[in-house]
Amino acid sequence: MSELKKNSISGKLIILNTERSKRCNEFLKKQTSCMNKNQYEKDCPLCLGNENMTPKETFSIINDRKKWIVRSIPNKYPILTSEKNTENQKDNFIHGEHEVLVESNKHDANFYNMTSKEFVYIIKMYVNRYKELYKDNIKYVSIIKNYLMKAGASLEHSHSQIISMSIVPPTIKEEITNARNYFNENNSSYFDEMLSNKNNIFIENKFFYAFVPENSSYGLEINIVSKYKSNFEEINEDEIELLSDILMKTYKKLKEVTGHLPFNMFLHTLPKDDEDNLKYYRYHFHIIQRKWFFGGFELSNGIYVNSIDTEKLIEKLKNKKN
Amino acid sequence: MSELKKNSISGKLIILNTERSKRCNEFLKKQTSCMNKNQYEKDCPLCLGNENMTPKETFSIINDRKKWIVRSIPNKYPILTSEKNTENQKDNFIHGEHEVLVESNKHDANFYNMTSKEFVYIIKMYVNRYKELYKDNIKYVSIIKNYLMKAGASLEHSHSQIISMSIVPPTIKEEITNARNYFNENNSSYFDEMLSNKNNIFIENKFFYAFVPENSSYGLEINIVSKYKSNFEEINEDEIELLSDILMKTYKKLKEVTGHLPFNMFLHTLPKDDEDNLKYYRYHFHIIQRKWFFGGFELSNGIYVNSIDTEKLIEKLKNKKN
Repeated sequence: MSELKKNSISGKLIILNTERSKRCNEFLKKQTSCMNKNQYEKDCPLCLGNENMTPKETFSIINDRKKWIVRSIPNKYPILTSEKNTENQKDNFIHGEHEVLVESNKHDANFYNMTSKEFVYIIKMYVNRYKELYKDNIKYVSIIKNYLMKAGASLEHSHSQIISMSIVPPTIKEEITNARNYFNENNSSYFDEMLSNKNNIFIENKFFYAFVPENSSYGLEINIVSKYKSNFEEINEDEIELLSDILMKTYKKLKEVTGHLPFNMFLHTLPKDDEDNLKYYRYHFHIIQRKWFFGGFELSNGIYVNSIDTEKLIEKLKNKKN
Repeated sequence: MSELKKNSISGKLIILNTERSKRCNEFLKKQTSCMNKNQYEKDCPLCLGNENMTPKETFSIINDRKKWIVRSIPNKYPILTSEKNTENQKDNFIHGEHEVLVESNKHDANFYNMTSKEFVYIIKMYVNRYKELYKDNIKYVSIIKNYLMKAGASLEHSHSQIISMSIVPPTIKEEITNARNYFNENNSSYFDEMLSNKNNIFIENKFFYAFVPENSSYGLEINIVSKYKSNFEEINEDEIELLSDILMKTYKKLKEVTGHLPFNMFLHTLPKDDEDNLKYYRYHFHIIQRKWFFGGFELSNGIYVNSIDTEKLIEKLKNKKN
């Protein structure tokens, strides 16, 4: 039996049908794992010692021996470029900056094996670059991470991307509208509801909770949500510690329960000057494991098929010890 | 420089940035091709001689030796099931039927190497199943094809899927709305405009044209459009011949110009009883070659990055001989 559902926050339609998870996939059987092996790869532009292969860094955190632990560099092939780079500015010109955040000086580090301390460096980097790139003419700063090719990555070495832009992206506008509508219908914010009913939460600390959203377009999706804040720029030192801890624990659990899969992670936050929507919205990270490929059904119809048994997945994530 | 554009028909936002096509991809270098080799595979449920591995066929076209050339079977793991299969019908229940169309009795046949005659059998099968599955309680019938794993396929053997459903999908509603808005703004239908300005058309015959749409979310996209008809159900024998011919020629050109890539193909047609929108809309096939994987930028922001130089692509498609 198939149910048609609408995700409360993305507004996307999905068909829930757990029977379909039983079908086999000839191709998946044939896939081989492409795990990283060495701490250093001589051809990798993001490895420690290969700094001459990249543009000059914009920021870094260094260790006692004056070597960088994490660093940011301009993207060589930016999706957006800054305003001054264009002389004949068209009406439909969109501008911004695009940096790559190198998340570790080790080629074999990844989110599934990092310590809480390593996540602290990454989040500090996110905060620094987020604030630095949020300039006057910028409407939104997007932090995204693609891990492995199936998730859109073009380099193996662990990295994120940060892109400032002169518009608010459509998904953010839609999430805010849907969150406001949810509040008006339920007299409570979607994110506070998730927190108070607790059913789908599998880790919680003083400032954050990690939960499995209902009716995800992607099947394997986790959201990590700030309990009290709408704008990422307001994160403080104590929160950075606990965000890093919940990220580390979430990836450990995912590795045990669903496996070392390709994933995307991205931050969704209220834009800086949006005072009107503070009570409806909380900043959060989406983590989407990319087990499947969207096929013609999704592209053609704009309806996503979710064959995951959410209750069972939550049960497994709750039971696993760290 | 990046331009922000909106696709006239899908309504999706894209960033045009041809510079980004220059970036290299570590993973793509390592990929190996997974071409089919044999006419018959003993483990393939869709091969001639292996009919006992599938449910009973619903339709077939047979040759002089009474063997099937193309056939349709119920999908073993359907996205939707018919109304009668559920006793406790919920409000949000969605129903329909889901068949697999086996497009050839040879395991090594694919759209890049098929003859025009082979396409005729496939289109006849599409028409037969489309009409058969469009029952009273059905609002739309979706024909989709996934070729190779990156495009969402789970079986190698060439096949399409046909899914009838009790709703009109969101993308179809949006396309119709956008086509109507285009007509009201331009006093002419989008599809007729494409036909009359001819710039992006690389093959044309009496009933159909093949063109590269501007501002595609996918980069490598081709549309094959009916010149005069809005509803696929009205296709006649002469049109089937010419649709098959333009499909064969399009895939030959794609193979030469962009390569033997994974792709999705799907039909978009006006729903059966929609009399109001006839003049705005033409039924068409989208062909989307899946060279890249959508990453976090697209998922997070709902904006697609197109790094293809459309003019150059059209030039190449026009110049190639068949």
